[in-house]
Amino acid sequence: MTSTAYPTVRLSRDRAALVLVDHQVGLLLGVHDQDQENLRRNVIALAKMAAAYQLPVVLTTSADDGPNGALLPELAAELPNVTVVRRPGEIDAFDNAEFAAAVQATGRDQLIIAGISTDVCVAFAALSAVAAGYQVHAVLDASGTWSALASQAAAHRMGNAGVVLNGTVAVGAELQSDWRHDGGQQLAELYAGYAIPFYNSLISYAARNAQLAAQS
Amino acid sequence: MTSTAYPTVRLSRDRAALVLVDHQVGLLLGVHDQDQENLRRNVIALAKMAAAYQLPVVLTTSADDGPNGALLPELAAELPNVTVVRRPGEIDAFDNAEFAAAVQATGRDQLIIAGISTDVCVAFAALSAVAAGYQVHAVLDASGTWSALASQAAAHRMGNAGVVLNGTVAVGAELQSDWRHDGGQQLAELYAGYAIPFYNSLISYAARNAQLAAQS
Amino acid sequence: MTSTAYPTVRLSRDRAALVLVDHQVGLLLGVHDQDQENLRRNVIALAKMAAAYQLPVVLTTSADDGPNGALLPELAAELPNVTVVRRPGEIDAFDNAEFAAAVQATGRDQLIIAGISTDVCVAFAALSAVAAGYQVHAVLDASGTWSALASQAAAHRMGNAGVVLNGTVAVGAELQSDWRHDGGQQLAELYAGYAIPFYNSLISYAARNAQLAAQS
Amino acid sequence: MTSTAYPTVRLSRDRAALVLVDHQVGLLLGVHDQDQENLRRNVIALAKMAAAYQLPVVLTTSADDGPNGALLPELAAELPNVTVVRRPGEIDAFDNAEFAAAVQATGRDQLIIAGISTDVCVAFAALSAVAAGYQVHAVLDASGTWSALASQAAAHRMGNAGVVLNGTVAVGAELQSDWRHDGGQQLAELYAGYAIPFYNSLISYAARNAQLAAQS
Amino acid sequence: MTSTAYPTVRLSRDRAALVLVDHQVGLLLGVHDQDQENLRRNVIALAKMAAAYQLPVVLTTSADDGPNGALLPELAAELPNVTVVRRPGEIDAFDNAEFAAAVQATGRDQLIIAGISTDVCVAFAALSAVAAGYQVHAVLDASGTWSALASQAAAHRMGNAGVVLNGTVAVGAELQSDWRHDGGQQLAELYAGYAIPFYNSLISYAARNAQLAAQS
Amino acid sequence: MTSTAYPTVRLSRDRAALVLVDHQVGLLLGVHDQDQENLRRNVIALAKMAAAYQLPVVLTTSADDGPNGALLPELAAELPNVTVVRRPGEIDAFDNAEFAAAVQATGRDQLIIAGISTDVCVAFAALSAVAAGYQVHAVLDASGTWSALASQAAAHRMGNAGVVLNGTVAVGAELQSDWRHDGGQQLAELYAGYAIPFYNSLISYAARNAQLAAQS
Amino acid sequence: MTSTAYPTVRLSRDRAALVLVDHQVGLLLGVHDQDQENLRRNVIALAKMAAAYQLPVVLTTSADDGPNGALLPELAAELPNVTVVRRPGEIDAFDNAEFAAAVQATGRDQLIIAGISTDVCVAFAALSAVAAGYQVHAVLDASGTWSALASQAAAHRMGNAGVVLNGTVAVGAELQSDWRHDGGQQLAELYAGYAIPFYNSLISYAARNAQLAAQS
Amino acid sequence: MTSTAYPTVRLSRDRAALVLVDHQVGLLLGVHDQDQENLRRNVIALAKMAAAYQLPVVLTTSADDGPNGALLPELAAELPNVTVVRRPGEIDAFDNAEFAAAVQATGRDQLIIAGISTDVCVAFAALSAVAAGYQVHAVLDASGTWSALASQAAAHRMGNAGVVLNGTVAVGAELQSDWRHDGGQQLAELYAGYAIPFYNSLISYAARNAQLAAQS
Repeated sequence: MTSTAYPTVRLSRDRAALVLVDHQVGLLLGVHDQDQENLRRNVIALAKMAAAYQLPVVLTTSADDGPNGALLPELAAELPNVTVVRRPGEIDAFDNAEFAAAVQATGRDQLIIAGISTDVCVAFAALSAVAAGYQVHAVLDASGTWSALASQAAAHRMGNAGVVLNGTVAVGAELQSDWRHDGGQQLAELYAGYAIPFYNSLISYAARNAQLAAQS
Repeated sequence: MTSTAYPTVRLSRDRAALVLVDHQVGLLLGVHDQDQENLRRNVIALAKMAAAYQLPVVLTTSADDGPNGALLPELAAELPNVTVVRRPGEIDAFDNAEFAAAVQATGRDQLIIAGISTDVCVAFAALSAVAAGYQVHAVLDASGTWSALASQAAAHRMGNAGVVLNGTVAVGAELQSDWRHDGGQQLAELYAGYAIPFYNSLISYAARNAQLAAQS
Repeated sequence: MTSTAYPTVRLSRDRAALVLVDHQVGLLLGVHDQDQENLRRNVIALAKMAAAYQLPVVLTTSADDGPNGALLPELAAELPNVTVVRRPGEIDAFDNAEFAAAVQATGRDQLIIAGISTDVCVAFAALSAVAAGYQVHAVLDASGTWSALASQAAAHRMGNAGVVLNGTVAVGAELQSDWRHDGGQQLAELYAGYAIPFYNSLISYAARNAQLAAQS
Repeated sequence: MTSTAYPTVRLSRDRAALVLVDHQVGLLLGVHDQDQENLRRNVIALAKMAAAYQLPVVLTTSADDGPNGALLPELAAELPNVTVVRRPGEIDAFDNAEFAAAVQATGRDQLIIAGISTDVCVAFAALSAVAAGYQVHAVLDASGTWSALASQAAAHRMGNAGVVLNGTVAVGAELQSDWRHDGGQQLAELYAGYAIPFYNSLISYAARNAQLAAQS
Repeated sequence: MTSTAYPTVRLSRDRAALVLVDHQVGLLLGVHDQDQENLRRNVIALAKMAAAYQLPVVLTTSADDGPNGALLPELAAELPNVTVVRRPGEIDAFDNAEFAAAVQATGRDQLIIAGISTDVCVAFAALSAVAAGYQVHAVLDASGTWSALASQAAAHRMGNAGVVLNGTVAVGAELQSDWRHDGGQQLAELYAGYAIPFYNSLISYAARNAQLAAQS
Repeated sequence: MTSTAYPTVRLSRDRAALVLVDHQVGLLLGVHDQDQENLRRNVIALAKMAAAYQLPVVLTTSADDGPNGALLPELAAELPNVTVVRRPGEIDAFDNAEFAAAVQATGRDQLIIAGISTDVCVAFAALSAVAAGYQVHAVLDASGTWSALASQAAAHRMGNAGVVLNGTVAVGAELQSDWRHDGGQQLAELYAGYAIPFYNSLISYAARNAQLAAQS
Repeated sequence: MTSTAYPTVRLSRDRAALVLVDHQVGLLLGVHDQDQENLRRNVIALAKMAAAYQLPVVLTTSADDGPNGALLPELAAELPNVTVVRRPGEIDAFDNAEFAAAVQATGRDQLIIAGISTDVCVAFAALSAVAAGYQVHAVLDASGTWSALASQAAAHRMGNAGVVLNGTVAVGAELQSDWRHDGGQQLAELYAGYAIPFYNSLISYAARNAQLAAQS
Repeated sequence: MTSTAYPTVRLSRDRAALVLVDHQVGLLLGVHDQDQENLRRNVIALAKMAAAYQLPVVLTTSADDGPNGALLPELAAELPNVTVVRRPGEIDAFDNAEFAAAVQATGRDQLIIAGISTDVCVAFAALSAVAAGYQVHAVLDASGTWSALASQAAAHRMGNAGVVLNGTVAVGAELQSDWRHDGGQQLAELYAGYAIPFYNSLISYAARNAQLAAQS
């Protein structure tokens, strides 16, 4: 059994921090391995999970006064109290001392990492985090990159190097653990509103059916 | 050679149990990494295999009085004598003591797991099962999830953590082992009727040819 | 307004006949412009519609003692009282006098045509039917052919020559016209069971919700 | 020049009405020819356009107390003052006298039609509208259906019968005509927020650049 | 009924000629709207049909001593007695007097045209042929071009201008008309060997079944 | 024969003008029905064709000081002497009097139109041009739009209304007419460098082979 | 470095044997994870490689008098002197003593395995071979299976268990090692004729260019 | 943690060399697992990175006087001072003593390898390099091969054997490490001009916005 198996890497709200790397407006416009709007909804979902589970969050951007553009405004709005580490040049976020310190200051040993692009910002941070002893979950569908081959390369690279590959819905489920725990209602709402909108259809469909039954 | 190689993990009808997690009507409506109807036919095929090979079966649902919906009626109909563990909130099925006990009570050490969604219900149960010492086969084409990236993440995650990735037809073949053993006729029928309908075309095509030859 | 516009070509249960051309087992195995199992379900749905709306049906096969194989057994089973015109060689079904007479004997002026392959059996029959003065609906998703380019060519060819391009669900809806008319229940059932299985999920999902509401 | 060419069919805010047919929650769950979330955003965009251009709107649903489900709640919320014609059974909306009267009562001769499904609700209404003398624009990307072949069949069928095939963004642009006219700001906002979210990225990207330039 | 409907344009072995435009080795290497090998097999099938039905054939190449490369050697081998009109510069083959005369000399009024690329060599020749009074069938799957959008543009352009869009298998079937006529055996063989290789599988499968039945 | 058939609409360097509508940097970033880089190369190829064939060119942009961004710099560089009609608000370029006058001033009756997006800028201009009596070729692969359904809708809409659908390579070939005419060398170079880069591979491959043969 | 790295598993013509499992006509008709004709050409290429490099070959079929059908006739024709192990029921070929003995009798320790289906016949044989101490190369593109998910599951499963995943062209190149060694000419021919037909285009294109250069 | 994790394999401009294997014109024409033009741009980007970071480069070709064709001229032009090791027959470049010596002479222990095809030239060189003790990064999107299955097999094979799978953009970012280090400007330019052209759009878009802001 490898080090990426349970129970070692199972996410827990007491051990996890959220790390969002370079979700910048300009970079989003270049994403082509998934729908850009799905990515946007998924990263907002991750931000809302952090609020629901009181996870510490580290936000960072790269050269956000250049072509990469600013942090997604909707992400900034979700996380008003989080300081953004604006990296002036370091591509691997862990090369920036302020960022590395911010991660360490969370006191958490499990890092949930997403970003743009998957093969650069996510992979470098994830690999450095593994090297630094963190357990790392890379959230593929809250990240994005420029081509299918780059996306596949990044998945293989991270998976082979000890990073857990994960998805937005699964991260939420893993943190929630039990729908009856605190946060269950919020998780259902952010699934329905952001990560898997079909869930919203299900909820309203079921509500209507119940209402009709009550009327009859 | 890893622990997921033969002969260790070769499925056997004496050692295997079938575990179906959250094949619920509402969740099926959100599956987009494969055809929903293929998924439905494949999970019915698994249920019929359990009957053919007398495998113990553990069925579980999550919050089946909420938006997830009830267990697929056709699955319930195939397995009338199986008690369904209705988890009131636990997302990882092994967190539910009744479920874990039901699995242990099968006395089997090989678990064939399918469910909706692949990255949540299947992955969590599969990883916990590996951690608990079971050999685990995750049946990708009798499971489903919301997006291609989530599907790929789950495949890498499970494969890297010691879960065998498998498909419905292969599970049947592995259990049958030899077409002359008991169950061969049933397996051919459930291939033709459910898992790979082209096989039905082949069977009727061959029968017609033989009939024509006999007439001439 | 062209001759393919409403109300001229609107299907009616009093004016329409169903014509199924060469849904033979061997040919089905070569279909690659859509899922073979979808095609199979759709053509069964058409057969069931004919029963529901008491449409006359004309079935024909081409060289069914050769490589094309026999009529799909499940189609034969749906339509036990329909004589099959077994064409010994004519590729355009209207070149076979028995077939042409059978169509004429229906007394209908609207023909719903499906078959394998779209570009041969369907297109030839549809074009000849238009030439003979029938209004023709070609049902693309109850038909199939060998490649995407052949499928596209057939759609353009038929559409440009005055054939209405249609789908299985729409044919049923057009014939039913009003869910309260005779046949509504049967149509819902064959949608759910054959043409659009997600409808089955909806029905059972809604039923469950109503049941839960009643209990509470 | 055909009857579907300019200037005859050019949309104008003085001549157009919006007709939304069967955007019901259950039906949305069966859409597979485009992303369900795109469809949802596009139909909301159409509703917002109606507000921006003061277009009369006709809403209708089919058997909304059955499996089709209720009108999308977000659509109902956008159009609080619009009466919904709840058709008890008629599949072609124009077969329902109340609906036909509501359309006529708009006093408009151009109908912008979208719905679920494209091949049934949209096609039937569009063809009947053409037959009744309306100029009709079918909005493909604010509609949806069950399969690629059904989607293609519907596009050919409607296009060949004199319906203009259109998209959500183009409908807005055609109604707006000039960005300086009333409604321009609202159109840009609903493009950015609903129909083409990349436009939101552009807007915030440009704003940031201007801000940076101003600072330097 | 348009001029592209039956019976006007129905192909007949007495009225049709085959015209192959620029199936040159270099050009084949740039085809990306279908599998290059399918294209190669389909054009060979067309050449074999010409032999089977004794259709006159006109072959032409464009600048075959330049980057376009020589005529496909396997096509030259199939049609040893056909003179190739080597156009020194004209892109629309009908602009070359020798070619136009060769087509006229066939004495046929139906032209079956295929070539590389669909949007240039095929479309130009097909449109000129229509203008010159020929009935024209463009064989999409024995032709090819550089991108999906160019392929779609060419299909719409030709279809809208009175060219019949067709496929290799359908052309053969239309010429054969009845499997019992001369050429039926040859057609089956070139289907099995070239145009639809699955037919070869069917034939050998059926033969084996008959043999087995005879043995038992 | 329709009005879009040969020889009426055959492009000629004496009758054609090139009209490029809204190839703006921001809009390019939203194109998703084809590769953005293909689009960029194709529109540059069109600009180079205009130079090679001395076609008059009309360039226009929409609100180029807003989110749409400026004209593609590489396009501006190709056409340094062309005045850009900067439309302050009109979406259909023909609504702008300066643009309409510029088109008329070309003295040409054939318009080759490309732009972003296909369903708005191209379709509106193309339909207005047809209405104004021009023969219009819409170049699909030098244009782009936001989704597959919008792209298909635009193709059907324009084709059904009398616009010729075309591709970049075919436009060049239609204008060149004969490789020996003036411009042939330039056309080959812009094919190889821009529209179909595989042609560059062919040319250098052939040159190398000739060189090797000369050495031996 | 794992046991699947060089130089351990590098294929050599002195150490390798070819094992083809269940390339049967009926099964080929069910392959949907790649083009059936590509599969057919690739497995013929493997058979021709065996001849070129004098590799021992083991052929086996499963229930070839049932629906699976007979061995592909073209494969039988390539390997006339190879005895086929006709397994009466064993699904994993290594469960058949005759097969296991035949493999052992080759005296080789490297097995190149292909078959239909990838997830059953190939995976079971490959895993058993690894367990028995062989080095195993599974040739994915000379194998096939029923769906994309089954194909992906099999790739992960075999790769994670110590099987080398390989392709037909690479197997040939690995065995050839140097184009100047015996077999180089044969390998080029079977690439051009079977595994990668574009290579045939290259060869004839280059030959033509050389010929033209010689003439000038 | 495996040997492919950070920090062991993190690329550094002091330790890395670039190895380009068989980027030959003829081979490029057979690439079908990605756009050929993307591949061409990516490999030029790698060559430009070598210049920017002063990485030693080893170029090699295989039988470049045969069908494979010559080294891409644009690559030769980028690297005028690099000697090309023209392998007369060895397929695995490390079997050629001159190549192996050239690699060793670079004095680097990290090899960035790309080539055509991924499964032959790249995989063989990469696996031999790992066996020889180098750390190896295979750049998937600057490489290419003939089919999707061959591409997937190569990715699994290399990843499972200790090769890091990477992409062009990530290689540049890993070498640059910090945008403020030498080479940052060059990296941005080669991203914009070659590896990810959308970045060029961003840069010109931002520049325009700044200009507009300055004017206002």
